[in-house]
Amino acid sequence: MPTILGQNQYGKAENRVVKITREGDTHHIKDLNVSVALSGDMDEVHYSGSNAHVLPTDTTKNTVFAFAKGHGIESAEQFGIHLARHFVESQEPIKRARIRVEEYAWDRIATSDSGGRFIGADEVRHSFVRNGQETRTAQVTYDGESFQVFSGLKDLTVMNSTNSEFWGYVKDRYTTLKEAYDRILATEVTGWWRHNWTSDEQRMPQWERSYARTKQHLLDAFVETYSLSLQQTLYQMGARVINSRSEIDEIRFSLPNKHHFLVDLEPFGLTNDSADGAVYFAADRPYGLIEATILRDGCEPQIPVDMTNL
Amino acid sequence: MPTILGQNQYGKAENRVVKITREGDTHHIKDLNVSVALSGDMDEVHYSGSNAHVLPTDTTKNTVFAFAKGHGIESAEQFGIHLARHFVESQEPIKRARIRVEEYAWDRIATSDSGGRFIGADEVRHSFVRNGQETRTAQVTYDGESFQVFSGLKDLTVMNSTNSEFWGYVKDRYTTLKEAYDRILATEVTGWWRHNWTSDEQRMPQWERSYARTKQHLLDAFVETYSLSLQQTLYQMGARVINSRSEIDEIRFSLPNKHHFLVDLEPFGLTNDSADGAVYFAADRPYGLIEATILRDGCEPQIPVDMTNL
Amino acid sequence: MPTILGQNQYGKAENRVVKITREGDTHHIKDLNVSVALSGDMDEVHYSGSNAHVLPTDTTKNTVFAFAKGHGIESAEQFGIHLARHFVESQEPIKRARIRVEEYAWDRIATSDSGGRFIGADEVRHSFVRNGQETRTAQVTYDGESFQVFSGLKDLTVMNSTNSEFWGYVKDRYTTLKEAYDRILATEVTGWWRHNWTSDEQRMPQWERSYARTKQHLLDAFVETYSLSLQQTLYQMGARVINSRSEIDEIRFSLPNKHHFLVDLEPFGLTNDSADGAVYFAADRPYGLIEATILRDGCEPQIPVDMTNL
Amino acid sequence: MPTILGQNQYGKAENRVVKITREGDTHHIKDLNVSVALSGDMDEVHYSGSNAHVLPTDTTKNTVFAFAKGHGIESAEQFGIHLARHFVESQEPIKRARIRVEEYAWDRIATSDSGGRFIGADEVRHSFVRNGQETRTAQVTYDGESFQVFSGLKDLTVMNSTNSEFWGYVKDRYTTLKEAYDRILATEVTGWWRHNWTSDEQRMPQWERSYARTKQHLLDAFVETYSLSLQQTLYQMGARVINSRSEIDEIRFSLPNKHHFLVDLEPFGLTNDSADGAVYFAADRPYGLIEATILRDGCEPQIPVDMTNL
Repeated sequence: MPTILGQNQYGKAENRVVKITREGDTHHIKDLNVSVALSGDMDEVHYSGSNAHVLPTDTTKNTVFAFAKGHGIESAEQFGIHLARHFVESQEPIKRARIRVEEYAWDRIATSDSGGRFIGADEVRHSFVRNGQETRTAQVTYDGESFQVFSGLKDLTVMNSTNSEFWGYVKDRYTTLKEAYDRILATEVTGWWRHNWTSDEQRMPQWERSYARTKQHLLDAFVETYSLSLQQTLYQMGARVINSRSEIDEIRFSLPNKHHFLVDLEPFGLTNDSADGAVYFAADRPYGLIEATILRDGCEPQIPVDMTNL
Repeated sequence: MPTILGQNQYGKAENRVVKITREGDTHHIKDLNVSVALSGDMDEVHYSGSNAHVLPTDTTKNTVFAFAKGHGIESAEQFGIHLARHFVESQEPIKRARIRVEEYAWDRIATSDSGGRFIGADEVRHSFVRNGQETRTAQVTYDGESFQVFSGLKDLTVMNSTNSEFWGYVKDRYTTLKEAYDRILATEVTGWWRHNWTSDEQRMPQWERSYARTKQHLLDAFVETYSLSLQQTLYQMGARVINSRSEIDEIRFSLPNKHHFLVDLEPFGLTNDSADGAVYFAADRPYGLIEATILRDGCEPQIPVDMTNL
Repeated sequence: MPTILGQNQYGKAENRVVKITREGDTHHIKDLNVSVALSGDMDEVHYSGSNAHVLPTDTTKNTVFAFAKGHGIESAEQFGIHLARHFVESQEPIKRARIRVEEYAWDRIATSDSGGRFIGADEVRHSFVRNGQETRTAQVTYDGESFQVFSGLKDLTVMNSTNSEFWGYVKDRYTTLKEAYDRILATEVTGWWRHNWTSDEQRMPQWERSYARTKQHLLDAFVETYSLSLQQTLYQMGARVINSRSEIDEIRFSLPNKHHFLVDLEPFGLTNDSADGAVYFAADRPYGLIEATILRDGCEPQIPVDMTNL
Repeated sequence: MPTILGQNQYGKAENRVVKITREGDTHHIKDLNVSVALSGDMDEVHYSGSNAHVLPTDTTKNTVFAFAKGHGIESAEQFGIHLARHFVESQEPIKRARIRVEEYAWDRIATSDSGGRFIGADEVRHSFVRNGQETRTAQVTYDGESFQVFSGLKDLTVMNSTNSEFWGYVKDRYTTLKEAYDRILATEVTGWWRHNWTSDEQRMPQWERSYARTKQHLLDAFVETYSLSLQQTLYQMGARVINSRSEIDEIRFSLPNKHHFLVDLEPFGLTNDSADGAVYFAADRPYGLIEATILRDGCEPQIPVDMTNL
């Protein structure tokens, strides 16, 4: 046979599972989008169409919903660990399972009572508003021996309205850009980070806390870095996370430079100066795109190059 | 000529204008998407292509940016009023101007200092994160005599995880739905409301405050209504706004019923009961769609039927 | 009661129904997205939550699928007529039904046999590829007495790479645009047209043929018009349809001016001239937006202003 | 330093370049979206913010437009080869350039003359309609020594309305799916294939012809395969390409199973049977997702696992 089968995987993608947990009148919500990808001894289904080794994708969907009830959803990562382990350990032909998750955050709605007094969100027990600031992500892979756990986020749009410069760059015959000494730096952060937890023999990270702290660290670094290039800001964001979170060995970012161009208002007799509080045109395309991995020294990279562009 | 020209309008759509205002080290941001639509004495450009009455759409774009600098952006509504008045009053052939605006909210980033102490968002002076909860909208129309001002929002996704029932409905030969006594009620609110301010002779509403209060009122009503149908919840949301905000005479909502279906887990030996904290499948399509206008008694409706579906 | 209910409607939106008809080995496909909106005697469900007059949206969904089997889908318009009539005539409280449809076209896949001979698409009997050129649309409204039928399309992207000019326009203090004597004219056509058929007493149009011809006429006019403004092109497109199709009395277009800006290559020693075959930057936002209705003389407009922006 | 920089790259993404070539009155159009990613000796810009090795992303944008004029756009692949070579060979710090391209196809508009005679598309010389069937893709990477050229497509939606079965699969405790002996098989093809051309010493493929033939081969295999699983169909599509196109050594597909569920119409007294021409519900999410690489025997895989999910 002149052609052979290479890497392959299959499963049900984008299972939208919502779990409400009731603690008396107080409800808690977990809202996930779960994608299952399985691989293993699957040559025959490709070559002949025999499904003898194929657990249907419909079954993987059912398993997601049954596990949400049976195990609950403590965190996206923990839920992924349960699922990945199940598929590999319960089905002989399946040698590797990858569970990808998007999580949508909901806040409690803060309300006011009929007398006009403000009621804190804590008193609102079963009403929620979708947060919308970022989408949290997770990916758990299990091969029967060890786990690989990535956590991440996307759609987190941030801006520094000053403390950003860009100058001293290479000029070739196609360079027309003017140097900038006070520009807006805005980006929509996509990041994935790898935990060094790989098996039950290690102490498992507190996934919810780890996520919250990691997000805070990368925001802190974004805010505090006086930026000479978006690459420098990216590196500071990654280094801050690696240096502050011992459970994380590797982080990768994809940071589009969401250009805000100072509008030329001279033709209308107006001076439009950054230092004076200026007017910008927020451009769509094209955009600069800065991508990099930051590693704990001595660690091997495992996050694929395009992982942050999915 | 057997064909004639009917309603027509033109202008530059989706001008993405960002205004940074500096108050010492503290920056403020307004981030708008502004669309201009002009109409008037425009037969000739349609019939013969003569542009003698046509202010170019490119000029309307320039005007948006110049006004953002010259007048600032106090609110989406105030900015729209400046622009609409300008086009009608400065160009003889233009009889009517409509300015549509989307506004994207940014929060200050809360950060922690290097010693680990938490710093409130107020101390962060020029770093922002896009809020993402909802998109604010506004539309100002001016015909040379009076203004029509609509304010609104979209993409505001809310959920009550209980206190919703649905029963007692009509059953015909195509009805298979089971009655529900404890269901999730989730929707993505799109709303437009009309202010009764129409000219400078009236006291102008405080647009920013009016928006914040209106949003709070509709959220309050969503939270507090024990719902027997989404129509009932919608009406309560609208009535609350009309009854609480004297500057608003009319409000229209489009509320998709974002179905969360209780998953049948019986085949897996699991009971999946709402009262016990259940697992739901969040469906995409199809979805119920509930739309209605609520009016102050005695007022004429002006918000078009599909305004909430744009 | 200080607030009252205004216009309201409800139903199941975006029912994705696919009908395969088998004619021996030759299959035919209709692929629709059907949205139902009902209105009538619905005050009580808004005021008190009583569903006594409410046919569930779930039932309207079931009806769509059952009618696709029972009546077949001859055309989007005919299918809408069946559905609208059914809801109004079978449910006393329902006084008006509006059916909106999107239709996705599929072509037969042209293939080649194993000997390398090309097989025409007609010989391929049950394999299809989605066409993707435009989305066809239809809207049928019935109030128990007469029908209103709109047909339309969207996402039809067209370009003339020459035969377009733009000059002789108004210049004010915000005008910086240079006049153009040979520019690209590109747009993404959204159009809705109204048929003058309103009841069974008239001869019903052949909906499939009417759509195909109308699309051809508007394309013909786009191609053949030497354009001095996009408004002129729009009017020609509409007038061609009205003059050529006696079953259509009104048409409305929304035509974004998809700007293709000539790139300034002078800094790199290159001349970039339209007449010589030039390089353009295809911009996203902002864009000019030209909208107008063209009517058969003596007819009343019925297509709402924002219908082409949904 | 406890953290180090890993893989990194930067450049301007999504440059929307349109090239019109005039051959007398007959125009030709190339419509591309070009993304540049450069890497090399870039540690310093990340560590200190020094831009001394950084060619601005704005310059890479200018280069795309200048090359479209200077070199023309013969094909997406050839254009990528010009650009990748230029960046690596003209800038000492740049060791590797990756050019990604999306291409949008335009057809000539077929029109009819005023006498009603049909005019073939060939006679229409400068009017185009965007095709919309699929988006063509290409990626060229150059490291100063050899090229890696991928071609591909996405958004190609195809359906077999019969000749597909699914049975004989694994049943575990979460399996509820019924076996199917006559189902719809529909998918939206995303594929990438790798050419074995790597340097000027080899004869370069005819990129346009290679693309057209490869697309035809994968469609042929889709049509002709009587399918017992989507994996089998996928493999046949890949094997057909490898066996038929000697310039291609590897191909990877991501095929979502666009489920068309037979609607249960029994409650309405209707039989809905595939063999009789049935009504289906076209579901959005979740969906099965089948991914695999097919290789010429003896070749090493180079297409990344998630390349087909970008």
